[in-house]
Amino acid sequence: MTDIRFALAQIDTCVGDLDGNADKVLQYARIAASNHARVVAFPEMTLTGYPIEDLALRATFRTAAWNKANWLATELEADGLGDLFVVVGTVGTDREHGKPLNRLVVLHDGVVWAGYDKHFLPNYGVFDEFRIFTPGNKSVVLDIDGVNVGVAICEDIWQDGGPVAELAERGIDVLLTINGSPYEEGKTDTRLALAQRRAAEVGAPLIYVNQVGGQDDLVFDGGSFVVDADGTLLERSPMFMENLSYINLNTAADKQLASTIVDKLDPDEEVYTACVLGLKDYMAKNHFTGVTLGLSGGIDSALVAAMAADACGGGNVHGISMPSMYSSDGSKDDAADLAENLGAHYDIQPIEPLFTAYQHQLHLDGVAAENLQARIRGVIVMAYSNSKGLLAVATGNKSELACGYSTIYGDAVGGYAPIKDLLKTRVWELSRWRNRAAAEGMGIGGLKIVGNEQGGAGVPLKNGVMIPVNSIEKAPSAELRPGQKDSDSLPEYALLDKVLAAYIEKAHGRADLLADGFDEATVDTVMRLVDRAEWKRRQYPLGPKVTALAFGRDRRLPITSAFRE
Amino acid sequence: MTDIRFALAQIDTCVGDLDGNADKVLQYARIAASNHARVVAFPEMTLTGYPIEDLALRATFRTAAWNKANWLATELEADGLGDLFVVVGTVGTDREHGKPLNRLVVLHDGVVWAGYDKHFLPNYGVFDEFRIFTPGNKSVVLDIDGVNVGVAICEDIWQDGGPVAELAERGIDVLLTINGSPYEEGKTDTRLALAQRRAAEVGAPLIYVNQVGGQDDLVFDGGSFVVDADGTLLERSPMFMENLSYINLNTAADKQLASTIVDKLDPDEEVYTACVLGLKDYMAKNHFTGVTLGLSGGIDSALVAAMAADACGGGNVHGISMPSMYSSDGSKDDAADLAENLGAHYDIQPIEPLFTAYQHQLHLDGVAAENLQARIRGVIVMAYSNSKGLLAVATGNKSELACGYSTIYGDAVGGYAPIKDLLKTRVWELSRWRNRAAAEGMGIGGLKIVGNEQGGAGVPLKNGVMIPVNSIEKAPSAELRPGQKDSDSLPEYALLDKVLAAYIEKAHGRADLLADGFDEATVDTVMRLVDRAEWKRRQYPLGPKVTALAFGRDRRLPITSAFRE
Repeated sequence: MTDIRFALAQIDTCVGDLDGNADKVLQYARIAASNHARVVAFPEMTLTGYPIEDLALRATFRTAAWNKANWLATELEADGLGDLFVVVGTVGTDREHGKPLNRLVVLHDGVVWAGYDKHFLPNYGVFDEFRIFTPGNKSVVLDIDGVNVGVAICEDIWQDGGPVAELAERGIDVLLTINGSPYEEGKTDTRLALAQRRAAEVGAPLIYVNQVGGQDDLVFDGGSFVVDADGTLLERSPMFMENLSYINLNTAADKQLASTIVDKLDPDEEVYTACVLGLKDYMAKNHFTGVTLGLSGGIDSALVAAMAADACGGGNVHGISMPSMYSSDGSKDDAADLAENLGAHYDIQPIEPLFTAYQHQLHLDGVAAENLQARIRGVIVMAYSNSKGLLAVATGNKSELACGYSTIYGDAVGGYAPIKDLLKTRVWELSRWRNRAAAEGMGIGGLKIVGNEQGGAGVPLKNGVMIPVNSIEKAPSAELRPGQKDSDSLPEYALLDKVLAAYIEKAHGRADLLADGFDEATVDTVMRLVDRAEWKRRQYPLGPKVTALAFGRDRRLPITSAFRE
Repeated sequence: MTDIRFALAQIDTCVGDLDGNADKVLQYARIAASNHARVVAFPEMTLTGYPIEDLALRATFRTAAWNKANWLATELEADGLGDLFVVVGTVGTDREHGKPLNRLVVLHDGVVWAGYDKHFLPNYGVFDEFRIFTPGNKSVVLDIDGVNVGVAICEDIWQDGGPVAELAERGIDVLLTINGSPYEEGKTDTRLALAQRRAAEVGAPLIYVNQVGGQDDLVFDGGSFVVDADGTLLERSPMFMENLSYINLNTAADKQLASTIVDKLDPDEEVYTACVLGLKDYMAKNHFTGVTLGLSGGIDSALVAAMAADACGGGNVHGISMPSMYSSDGSKDDAADLAENLGAHYDIQPIEPLFTAYQHQLHLDGVAAENLQARIRGVIVMAYSNSKGLLAVATGNKSELACGYSTIYGDAVGGYAPIKDLLKTRVWELSRWRNRAAAEGMGIGGLKIVGNEQGGAGVPLKNGVMIPVNSIEKAPSAELRPGQKDSDSLPEYALLDKVLAAYIEKAHGRADLLADGFDEATVDTVMRLVDRAEWKRRQYPLGPKVTALAFGRDRRLPITSAFRE
């Protein structure tokens, strides 16, 4: 078998941006060719972006994607790259039923030279592929200079049987997989173990090219890699950034080692960076350059502000302190110190005059009066958003969202919620990690970090720390009535987060939770809170469906999409 | 073949309410038995309610449902009904993989006597069944007194092949189908034509029992029916109400005609009633007894107020007039007249003092200042909701929601939006119909109508009409700046609604819309507005997913659910 060089092009695409995605392919293909790659592989659904959800159902979109693939093949040849094998993902159309396909195509010699359709269509968790695509049913082996390259798309290698089993029977020299595999904590090891198993099954090296970047509520971590048939890790690309790496197969061992194997990230750094990249890409793809948020002096808004500063620069963060009659002086000072450390804009908008004006008409008490304060703050944040063109970021964490411990249209206001999938105990951990990163001058997964050793304005950090220690250590409080503490309404977070993890992540029911060792009172409290909070999390108004196609559940378009045909 | 009497029990279940649903089965089974039914059939997933979404994935829920089916079989026998064949839907568990099944069971002789698992699992539009259930693969024929009863569940008859094709080969005397088929305009005729085709295919009568009632954003219309093998309609139950009807098969023609065939509803009445029932059931199943909403004097809030009064009685509707400096006197008068006609509570909360208080701090102009007015109103509506325990209903229609012509956290505030699937032109049509209904003393699909001839307070209708004519006829305006008209920002609704129908309902792309005959400027305006409005419709904050199971797309629980285990 011939010596062959593959390039792994780990790129960040944008859903619907056919032009931008194709241009990026062209640019990476040029570099790959100049580095003597024979094959350059891009992630799943490269041209269309991923996931495209119901955009796949629009015929004009599929036509435009098909035209773009042909344009790209022509353009590559015109560029002198017709000899290169360029493997990209796109959307296809099933000839028999006219339904969408999740397709891999090979561009070569100025044409769309070969195609393969994804066989296993995931339809669990965040995936809705069986809903929109028709499954392919043929395995495909490419003959490239006599090297037999089997191909597969993402879920195809996660399920037993199907195309990988067929390829194992047909006999291949290398298994090339293109992926749109969203980030999850700890998934690096899971993917590696899976790839090792499949490489052994087909008796050949496996190349895993993954997408990178944020798309709506998903973050793709990249981390592309190559394993040998015996399971040896031959290459690993960095996470959370675009990257082009190379692997020479069927060459002497010393040549193979020319590939890079990056270290895995620290778990806190990994999660923090995922959150920052999600926000950064959501802003970029929706054309926001700055954010606004309420800065209460509490840990949630502090961590979100730090993430926002890392995503778009401290000077593009507009923090608003909105003290009420119940806000402590310490909270106000902590918010101001953090803003200074980040080099962020910082305004003070007291809510007491507004609260008084409402109460003059409404005379509220109890929870209604507490919610009123949170909603006045929501109105102010949205006023900043509207008048300055800033993205409002919400600061709620997973523990409080799960329990409904937030005010709908109040502190829940915002277009993006960077920590909505972090339990409160994790918020504290990441805040401590962020302070260490600032103190020790660490980078953040390749992203530029704000305030290493010095504040954003170039002055030393207040008290020598980025996020004020008091924000991390004080007892959490919504400060909506005198002396209020989260623990008045919720179990202590150390316990609550464990119950939430079991109830939500593992779908444990009441009997399971008791068997897990949690006490009955806590279990009943948490289940009641979580079950009642569902409508708050899905706060868009429900309404009856009376036509064939309504908004809401039966129409699922990506929020971020550049497609306008 | 023996003479056999079937009862069609068209009931309104509640998701997760195993006790309540089972009690209702018991109650209807008793009546059916007392009327000499041999078989009584209930809708799809009777015991669990439908659709149960990811609740199906919780093992303790499936266990509880199984226990409830057994309890019910025992209870029926103890009640002297062991001889009756009671056909109910529930959730099952696949023995091989432990995955959920959408199951039909027959309760008889004190036991769960037979079972059938749904074969075709719809996964389009509002349906997510392939995502949560494992398909069954066996057709089932029940031998009841020598009569061969083939069974199927909902989607099984919408697809070619599968169990119906098998039953046609096996030969059956009757095809019994249990359904959870959501309402759509005009679906009565579609279902009938389909049933006629399947009845011909199996060469036997087809019994179609459908669920009735609202569940989150779905409304089930009932409308159960029976067609003979030759396509003759033998029975049709009313829409939008619980009902128990009977059909004698294999008896003389004169006996068959003892069944009732209700007339179809007027199309406007049908849609109006669907909206009212959706709201009414959402309130009942979430324990709300009253609603609150802003009454602007415009047609959207007027129609929603009328629907709310029909759902819960005018005395349980709390309308709030929230005039600004830009509100016309006519609008205020129209709102007051409507409230009086409906017998609704009516408060006036001017927003100018609040607007001034905010502006003292924020100094907004343009759209930011317009949104501020809408958001102050949102805060007031939510204050009424929180302090009085009322459901806030949103008044947005499909045209404005589609185009993003509303203020997030402002007029879009609310837990339920009764007209969110009605285009603006339909809002006008239904308002005119509602006025005719009031004037002519019509009932509304079996629901109690508020204000026939007289206002809710027993006084004559203002100017002799329920919804003020001016609300229907004046040019639509958000009244957020002097002289503002919807047509400043949007195409005229008569045109806009046609483009929206083509773009949204038919997924027509730009080229298709031009081919439909719409002019280029309008097409580009509408596409730009609709594409940008997606995030407003899905206004819950997005956030990155970093754990195996986050909120949002990868966890889909019903909002209304009575299950607490």
